[in-house]
Amino acid sequence: MVNNSDITVIEVKENILADNDKEAEKVRAMLKEHGIFLVNLMSSPGAGKTTTLVRTIGALKEKYRIGVIEADVDSDVDASTVTAAGAEAIQIHTGGSCHMDAEMTAKGLESMNTDALDLIFLENVGNLVCPAEFDVGQNARVMILSVPEGDDKPLKYPLMFKVSDLLLVNKTDTAPVFDFDMDRLRANVAALNPDMPVIPVSAKSGDGFGDWIRWLDEAVTKYRADRTE
Amino acid sequence: MVNNSDITVIEVKENILADNDKEAEKVRAMLKEHGIFLVNLMSSPGAGKTTTLVRTIGALKEKYRIGVIEADVDSDVDASTVTAAGAEAIQIHTGGSCHMDAEMTAKGLESMNTDALDLIFLENVGNLVCPAEFDVGQNARVMILSVPEGDDKPLKYPLMFKVSDLLLVNKTDTAPVFDFDMDRLRANVAALNPDMPVIPVSAKSGDGFGDWIRWLDEAVTKYRADRTE
Repeated sequence: MVNNSDITVIEVKENILADNDKEAEKVRAMLKEHGIFLVNLMSSPGAGKTTTLVRTIGALKEKYRIGVIEADVDSDVDASTVTAAGAEAIQIHTGGSCHMDAEMTAKGLESMNTDALDLIFLENVGNLVCPAEFDVGQNARVMILSVPEGDDKPLKYPLMFKVSDLLLVNKTDTAPVFDFDMDRLRANVAALNPDMPVIPVSAKSGDGFGDWIRWLDEAVTKYRADRTE
Repeated sequence: MVNNSDITVIEVKENILADNDKEAEKVRAMLKEHGIFLVNLMSSPGAGKTTTLVRTIGALKEKYRIGVIEADVDSDVDASTVTAAGAEAIQIHTGGSCHMDAEMTAKGLESMNTDALDLIFLENVGNLVCPAEFDVGQNARVMILSVPEGDDKPLKYPLMFKVSDLLLVNKTDTAPVFDFDMDRLRANVAALNPDMPVIPVSAKSGDGFGDWIRWLDEAVTKYRADRTE
């Protein structure tokens, strides 16, 4: 945090959280009942959520039955793409809202064939602010930051980095043309969330995907083991 | 818009606009009284708003007295940067909110030396959803899309492209490593906002900045002429 005494700082508070947390716990209970692991996937617009999903579905679709909830302000582009990759997909239009909440997620899940799914990805609205504040009832929050966005983003969107369980740093194939310092990013992340693993990947080339798929597979396996204990 | 009959679509409506429009007209009247031109600068996180501002301030600071309102969820990084570039800057913390509204803008302007400024940039929160919905009282909305985000973004964030007066396509220097088709982008933009100029730039190298500075200078000159008529 830079402190400059010449700069006037004005705080504007806004109340935006309601009974969302209660609703999120209901979603988690429902998922547990059905043995479904829900990943809340969050990033800026264009960071590579859909491309990451397509490659992840390809890697895991023989092992898990995969569903995708696509959240968008208004389009069906990504749902078509992940359907083609081999997942059951539904599209949620948030009607102008910049994030998913637990109630929207519950509605999405109601319309899916939950008895025939093991793993569901919620592709949240592309946004580093609002989605960080709303627990959708997920079992893991996975954030994607892409190299072109810069290594200073933890300073500007701290909450997203604080609440996430895993950070994928995508588009590592483009690192040569950007002033992106992976060590500086790791230091910025560690200051906010020291226990969060950071995995550099390229969803385009597949680089680093082994580590990500292993992390996810272990998380799902542990969840299922805990559930049947 | 892709239509796929296999995809379930759920609409979720939310009411998020209040008396903002009325407040925005008050801001515009105040700006007119002081002869100040306000630019609402919007983009995704990491698209290059601050770098664009620094170069723009450098190009215009001899001609106009420039102020900057930096809106951030919680940090002062950018205000320090633009202050160093030669503009009067204030920082607004939105307290978790994903956009500026007209009331926050009015508060920001109150704390600035408006008698000694000709041109103010509001660097909005990095976000392609919420800022598009809130008129802050600006005289021009300028959007930055960066090449790494992809040429499909108008399909996913249509409102931002519809309401903007000018689109800067930044980071053209990185085009060789991305599958970005400028013609496809122009076609996607034209479908939503056929009259909006699209100017490719590189805030890093300065490429294309002549066109952007010319557009802005003409807009300010016209505004000042209309005002004194």
